[in-house]
Amino acid sequence: MAGRHPPLGGIHEAALYVDDLEAAERFWSRLGFEAIGRAEGRHVFFRAGQDTLLLFDPEASLRAEGEVPAHGALGPAHLAFDVPDDAALEAWRRHLEHAGVAIERELSWPRGGRSLYFRDPDGNSIELITRGSWGY
Amino acid sequence: MAGRHPPLGGIHEAALYVDDLEAAERFWSRLGFEAIGRAEGRHVFFRAGQDTLLLFDPEASLRAEGEVPAHGALGPAHLAFDVPDDAALEAWRRHLEHAGVAIERELSWPRGGRSLYFRDPDGNSIELITRGSWGY
Repeated sequence: MAGRHPPLGGIHEAALYVDDLEAAERFWSRLGFEAIGRAEGRHVFFRAGQDTLLLFDPEASLRAEGEVPAHGALGPAHLAFDVPDDAALEAWRRHLEHAGVAIERELSWPRGGRSLYFRDPDGNSIELITRGSWGY
Repeated sequence: MAGRHPPLGGIHEAALYVDDLEAAERFWSRLGFEAIGRAEGRHVFFRAGQDTLLLFDPEASLRAEGEVPAHGALGPAHLAFDVPDDAALEAWRRHLEHAGVAIERELSWPRGGRSLYFRDPDGNSIELITRGSWGY
C-alpha cells in the first residue's frame, strides 16, 4: 500500500525531552518562541509556526498520570523547523548569533535548500531548513 | 523577545529512534507511507504529507560518521501528524484497524480537534490529530 494512506497534512507536534524544564523554557523563550501550555514538572509547549514543539521531563511523561499515553526518551534527539526562504534563514542566523546560540553546522542540500544546526541546552540537535531539500 | 523570532513555517522533520530499522520500515510501509531515503543500518526516511518522518538507529546516528550533527535517543518518544478533518480521522481509524494496528487511546480536546494514538513496533507514541486543538 505504499503511498496509499488516508489524508495527512504533515507533522503537527514533535517532542524533545529535557533534564531541566525551566532552563529549556528560558532557552526557547529567549529565541522568541511563545509558550502556550505548561504543567509544572511535566511539560512546557511552544508554538512553532503552524505546529507545536513539546518539551517534556521524560520521567514525568513516562509516569502517564494523565489521559495521554506514556512516553519519554533519553539522549539527544533531532527535529527540523522549516523556514520559508534564504532571507529568513539569514535572519535566523543573525537571531541565533544575537541570542548567543552557536551554529554547529551549515549544509546545502543536493536538491536545493540549506540548513543551519544548533543545540538546545540538553544537546538536542535542532535544524532550520529551507523548503526544497526533499523535493516537496 | 517572546513571539518575535524570524519567519518559521512549522515542524518539517521529526525523528524516531528504533531498534530494528527493517521492522520499522515494514511497519510504516504497511501503513502506506512512502520511503524516500535509506542508509543501510543508519536510517530510513518517509514522506509524511508535506513533511518528513526520520527513523534512525540511535547507535549509528550517534556515531556521526556523516556530515550531519550526531544525535540518538532511547525510549519511547512522541510525535503527532495532523489530519485535515474528522472524515480523514475516521479513515485513519479504519486504515489502522485494517493494518492490524491497535488504537491505544482516543481523545477529544477542549478547543476542538480529536486524536487517535497508536504505537510503532518500538513503542513510540504516534498521534493523529485533527486541526483545531491548539487554536491555530
